[in-house]
Amino acid sequence: MNTIDVCLSPDLIHKYNLSGKIVVIVDILRATSCITTGLAVGVKSIVPVVSLEKCKEMKSEGFFIAGERGGQKVDGFDIGNSPFSYMEPRFKGSNIAITTTNGTVAIEKSADADLIIIGSFLNISAVAMYVMKFNLDVIVFCAGWKGRVSIEDTLFAGALAEKLEDSYESADDSVLLSKSLYQKEKNNLLQYVENAGHAKRLRKFNVIKDIEFCLSMDTYNVVPVIKNGVIQLA
Amino acid sequence: MNTIDVCLSPDLIHKYNLSGKIVVIVDILRATSCITTGLAVGVKSIVPVVSLEKCKEMKSEGFFIAGERGGQKVDGFDIGNSPFSYMEPRFKGSNIAITTTNGTVAIEKSADADLIIIGSFLNISAVAMYVMKFNLDVIVFCAGWKGRVSIEDTLFAGALAEKLEDSYESADDSVLLSKSLYQKEKNNLLQYVENAGHAKRLRKFNVIKDIEFCLSMDTYNVVPVIKNGVIQLA
Repeated sequence: MNTIDVCLSPDLIHKYNLSGKIVVIVDILRATSCITTGLAVGVKSIVPVVSLEKCKEMKSEGFFIAGERGGQKVDGFDIGNSPFSYMEPRFKGSNIAITTTNGTVAIEKSADADLIIIGSFLNISAVAMYVMKFNLDVIVFCAGWKGRVSIEDTLFAGALAEKLEDSYESADDSVLLSKSLYQKEKNNLLQYVENAGHAKRLRKFNVIKDIEFCLSMDTYNVVPVIKNGVIQLA
Repeated sequence: MNTIDVCLSPDLIHKYNLSGKIVVIVDILRATSCITTGLAVGVKSIVPVVSLEKCKEMKSEGFFIAGERGGQKVDGFDIGNSPFSYMEPRFKGSNIAITTTNGTVAIEKSADADLIIIGSFLNISAVAMYVMKFNLDVIVFCAGWKGRVSIEDTLFAGALAEKLEDSYESADDSVLLSKSLYQKEKNNLLQYVENAGHAKRLRKFNVIKDIEFCLSMDTYNVVPVIKNGVIQLA
């Protein structure tokens, strides 16, 4: 039986061997929710880059650019980090370069994996169905918040682990922990996350609507995957 | 209001500023349970050292030596890592040098804290009462398992956070996560931990009795603290 494992922070990823495995990257608030939304509503491709400078350069190469630092849109960028901002008709069929505080770091640290998938509550069932097509171990990689654990990413890890529990063995305690957390809080997800640190940090930017949206399940039936540094639908 | 924070792994401790704070170190299976037990039953002092070699040297300085690697007692050492092994009458009034896989690493990484306390379920209420005497922020530092998160240490963090929730504000998501986990599993602690990775690794060494003992609450009303590298009762 293949295993499922959970890495709770980019600062712990060196403890995991990604080679030969599927990595599901999750940054619920809000990078992976944005990427899922963008591709689901018609964006052609999204290229994650680590620095703001690199992102700005890509503007001249025909990319729209999406940038956020510390929860706020960066001046001069086309797109902030609200999933709703990806729904503008002008982005249909376009290519977007994105840089975020935590999400793009996690993407960069996943390079050794055989298959890298973008996960969010918005496409969780699609992701679960997709990984089961492969005979590979799965690692859920939580982007967290500046190296710290974040509640909403851990909840996603638990939700995905629950969906896969009949087909995958739990590799480690972090899987049990995530699953227990999700099982305890799943009927109360929005209120629970709104009281957590990350949501509190975001709340001052009036993003309650974003948080609600990012916690809704299976809005989209799409699976973004990363190949050669470009995210597109599988 | 002072804050309580939780660090889930020694590999995340660089994200925490320990200066001016109380650190409660926890390695339920089994270093901090052993230290609590030893001092409660009459051991005079316990000196944590990182390497087996250093520990061996201390034998000639009049110390009994306790050593474990990968869950097993090391050849030539006086004491293994069962809390019961600390109860031998010959250790009463003695000084013990101890090295463990995870616990002593966490102790070494806590050096910047103002006050370092050894916590376990065996003395959890005594620890909670003791920290409240100080007007300082508290960080629960989980020793984990080789840099990974461990269920039993996280459960302790949640249990202590619950005990302190009326007097301390939660500093971060890891506190909420630990508390939710504990609240979900507290009536089922032994069975839950026995199914977790660390306990499974230990089970092959016939240590179910140790696990049961290490999960029992408030067996001892003592608070071990570390001063100048030596652990003694407060």
